[in-house]
Amino acid sequence: MTTTAPAADVLTARERLVRAAQELYAEQGVDATTPRQVLERSGVGQGSLYHHFPSKTDLARTALVRTTEESLDTARGTLAGGGSSSGRLRAYLGAPRDALAGCAVGRMTSDPVVMADPTLRAPLEEYFTGLLDLVTLALWEQGFSESEAHDRAMSVVATVQGGYVLARALGDDTALERALRGARTLCGLEES
Amino acid sequence: MTTTAPAADVLTARERLVRAAQELYAEQGVDATTPRQVLERSGVGQGSLYHHFPSKTDLARTALVRTTEESLDTARGTLAGGGSSSGRLRAYLGAPRDALAGCAVGRMTSDPVVMADPTLRAPLEEYFTGLLDLVTLALWEQGFSESEAHDRAMSVVATVQGGYVLARALGDDTALERALRGARTLCGLEES
Repeated sequence: MTTTAPAADVLTARERLVRAAQELYAEQGVDATTPRQVLERSGVGQGSLYHHFPSKTDLARTALVRTTEESLDTARGTLAGGGSSSGRLRAYLGAPRDALAGCAVGRMTSDPVVMADPTLRAPLEEYFTGLLDLVTLALWEQGFSESEAHDRAMSVVATVQGGYVLARALGDDTALERALRGARTLCGLEES
Repeated sequence: MTTTAPAADVLTARERLVRAAQELYAEQGVDATTPRQVLERSGVGQGSLYHHFPSKTDLARTALVRTTEESLDTARGTLAGGGSSSGRLRAYLGAPRDALAGCAVGRMTSDPVVMADPTLRAPLEEYFTGLLDLVTLALWEQGFSESEAHDRAMSVVATVQGGYVLARALGDDTALERALRGARTLCGLEES
């Protein structure tokens, strides 16, 4: 533990560690990511890693919370912005997605390290609960009943997640977009 | 390599290794599964493992092909069986699924070892291609046009996959069933 480093430097190293972990988790998951890889990607020293994040779990928790908060902020930007509910749903379903990379949040549900630790699964649950609320509200504004809006939101978010799975399994980045046509129908949106 | 063991014993050890690998992959993925775990689960000796499967990839390829073939056979049993297309689609969507365990095939799309090796990804692609064909045909028999049937099949299979993701993220095994209500709508099935 260094006591002479200025606060700004400390923050910067910590930030670089978190961002490196976020990238590596999105690429290969938490389980497959080693401290050495995080150090190499971040460019910070080993002492700094263990100073800020004494355990692998500390780093994983911080990076997963960051990733899920950023993803939910993005969804909020389209689904809770201004305009009609149909326009907002259209914007959410039409948002640019790297289908072959998969969802940085959804893929964590297959990571044995994440699923074995309730403190690592918690950010995933918060993300999907928040996202489902946003989609449910937009569907309710579309005129669906409360229970219909809840169920269709589950279908719509599932279609996004499963569309990523299909794109990766088929090696076909159009699979997600094609799956989302069905989600548009469930949202009461006309095909353009 | 033993030369004195009767053929039946050799087959049995190989089979136990494959089944142990299938179980472990479904629970924690290929990347996280060690040869030691496969040996312990199967109860066979170390020499037998390396005799039958010289590399981790050999075992993974065999076990993944087995899992995907078994899963496709199950789908074929409901989707290509007798009866009306609506009855077969209903049977497929209503099939028992362990939502919190996730899909033994779909989850492999988040496994870095599987996705990095085209020979390991190939069984996933074959599985989903075969499954999509079965669902597309049933939807076409329901009266959808060819392109509509193709797109809705992609949505329906994506909903199943994403329903598993949501169930695991939320820790709620009803999420998959609720997501599938939307898939029933897309299949032109009335809610019961």
